[in-house]
Amino acid sequence: MIHSILREKSAQFFLMYSNSVNFYYATKFKTHDPAIYLIGEDGTELIVVSEMEKKRVEEESKVKEIASFEDLGYKEKLRELKDSKRAFSEMVVELLKTHKAKKVLIPHELPAFLAVSLSENFEIEVIENPFIKIRAIKRGDEIEKIREVCNALIDVFDKTVKNFKFKSCEEVRNFIELNLFERGYLAEDTIVSTGKQTAIPHHRGHGKIEEHLVIDVFPRSREHLYYSDFTRTVFLEKNQELEDMYKAVVEAQERAISMIKDGVNARDVHTEVKQVLEDFGYKTTKTEGFIHSTGHGIGLEIHEEPRISDCDIELKSGMVFTVEPGLYYKDIGGVRVEDVVVVRKNGCEVLTNYEKFIRL
Amino acid sequence: MIHSILREKSAQFFLMYSNSVNFYYATKFKTHDPAIYLIGEDGTELIVVSEMEKKRVEEESKVKEIASFEDLGYKEKLRELKDSKRAFSEMVVELLKTHKAKKVLIPHELPAFLAVSLSENFEIEVIENPFIKIRAIKRGDEIEKIREVCNALIDVFDKTVKNFKFKSCEEVRNFIELNLFERGYLAEDTIVSTGKQTAIPHHRGHGKIEEHLVIDVFPRSREHLYYSDFTRTVFLEKNQELEDMYKAVVEAQERAISMIKDGVNARDVHTEVKQVLEDFGYKTTKTEGFIHSTGHGIGLEIHEEPRISDCDIELKSGMVFTVEPGLYYKDIGGVRVEDVVVVRKNGCEVLTNYEKFIRL
Repeated sequence: MIHSILREKSAQFFLMYSNSVNFYYATKFKTHDPAIYLIGEDGTELIVVSEMEKKRVEEESKVKEIASFEDLGYKEKLRELKDSKRAFSEMVVELLKTHKAKKVLIPHELPAFLAVSLSENFEIEVIENPFIKIRAIKRGDEIEKIREVCNALIDVFDKTVKNFKFKSCEEVRNFIELNLFERGYLAEDTIVSTGKQTAIPHHRGHGKIEEHLVIDVFPRSREHLYYSDFTRTVFLEKNQELEDMYKAVVEAQERAISMIKDGVNARDVHTEVKQVLEDFGYKTTKTEGFIHSTGHGIGLEIHEEPRISDCDIELKSGMVFTVEPGLYYKDIGGVRVEDVVVVRKNGCEVLTNYEKFIRL
Repeated sequence: MIHSILREKSAQFFLMYSNSVNFYYATKFKTHDPAIYLIGEDGTELIVVSEMEKKRVEEESKVKEIASFEDLGYKEKLRELKDSKRAFSEMVVELLKTHKAKKVLIPHELPAFLAVSLSENFEIEVIENPFIKIRAIKRGDEIEKIREVCNALIDVFDKTVKNFKFKSCEEVRNFIELNLFERGYLAEDTIVSTGKQTAIPHHRGHGKIEEHLVIDVFPRSREHLYYSDFTRTVFLEKNQELEDMYKAVVEAQERAISMIKDGVNARDVHTEVKQVLEDFGYKTTKTEGFIHSTGHGIGLEIHEEPRISDCDIELKSGMVFTVEPGLYYKDIGGVRVEDVVVVRKNGCEVLTNYEKFIRL
């Protein structure tokens, strides 16, 4: 795919930096430190890391060629320029010149210091990282990894609501996060919000539990780094207004799920959700009612392609994303339901099967 | 500080994006989603987020002005351009034009898609994010946060080596990470390596424990996000060669720590470490012996300013960094010792006080 983009855009190279999960997806090498991955139409497939990381790349990555910054003269440049970013950029520019680059494609997320340096030496074109589209359609092994996280999440959620004896949002959050961690999953900023807090979709929540809770958990595997994402609104006391809202979002979600299959336009799914909620008499404006999109892809990132919103995107088999309608009213509070689905040829598979209506 | 840089460079604005901890440090607003922070010489101090995040910004951030993408016409642009990155860039360009910007400063880490768009509409200059230098010198409350993480780390490490009954590297790693998580700290990729694995400094380690272990733990608080970082080499069986190497790194570390104080050049600290190790007969080349730098700042990132290496950096009171000499030989294995220090006027304070020589 990269090679056909290079040909189409008459470019010789595509250059990535280690500041995004695309780098890990493409190279299988996990790092928090600067690193470069270069793909060339001449068959180049080169990873550049610090000298001390070379052996780890050999062990972990499948990239053909490995060079170190030291091999490419970084230290000498640093001594001369006394500026690590300039030294790094000049090293990359020289590497590309050695390979006779004229036009270089760079992804949206490449850091500015490199982008600007490259633009001074080559023709550049900023493109969406092709690995984003590749990542949107999961391979079978990726779906199994996400399924594994979903299963652990459902187990822990079930343990949380059975024999529920928590008094505060913090206690619920700690219980969920600790139980997931013990099983090898990291959930952070888990939303356990109550009362009027729930009117703010991303409010983490705190304090004494009131009539209802919005519990939104999005753990990732600590081993393979794939995410899951799941929300239920649970009721502790009767509140007709909130319960009616929740019935509407569950209905909207089920209608959405029933229409998801290979070839469907994501925009139509989002439109259907809005239509159901409007039919129930709720608003779908930007400030009140249903105020966010219907869902987002999950994988190595918690928010990735495809987005299920007001944009045209053809859903394809193997896409994995959330379906999560919600309703939010400042004076009443909020409700949301969220599941993860995989698109299949004739429908979709729900990876987070769990009861929607829960009374504690 | 930002304003004096703007004046010095005759620029009207400094623009940040939410893709670095500098954004969180500057705004106190935590997010994984796109957001903009704009500082202007005209007194502008504006955060731009999605509509649904506005209320959370109001609650969490101290930034004066808040606008949403919707307020600035993002949705209309997206409908017209059908490209979220282009719509976003055009929104930012229009915002800056409304503010009569001519020259805009952008940090190294700004994403390329924004950097290139800005460069087509304004004079731009890529600079080191000024918050990196501001962050290098910790305020008192930041030092206390790091101290808190160091204390928890030392407690857990002590619990790990007392009554040591583990058979594999994985068991040690799980014990440490789970105990830290229970206390509110997240340690990932903790290094517990043994045998020849230890010759690779960042090797995570696996399998049956052999004669010695390198245990390198770098947790961060799950609440305030500050890091600590700590390493000990521990011996289970006699190995004279490795023990001699470890004595040398401990000596090098202690000599380095004894010279750290306000005003000292970081390069001199690094040179001293190399000298001690060379005096002991070890190599300080790029491939064998002491192959990395002496240390790195810690704070909201695990690797930040100041770097204790071959570069001139004047150490200042309040800087917090690691001192971590190590020796690595492919055919023997590796050893490392690491502590966190705070620079003071007349010396430095060690935040991770713990026995250096540990026999299990």
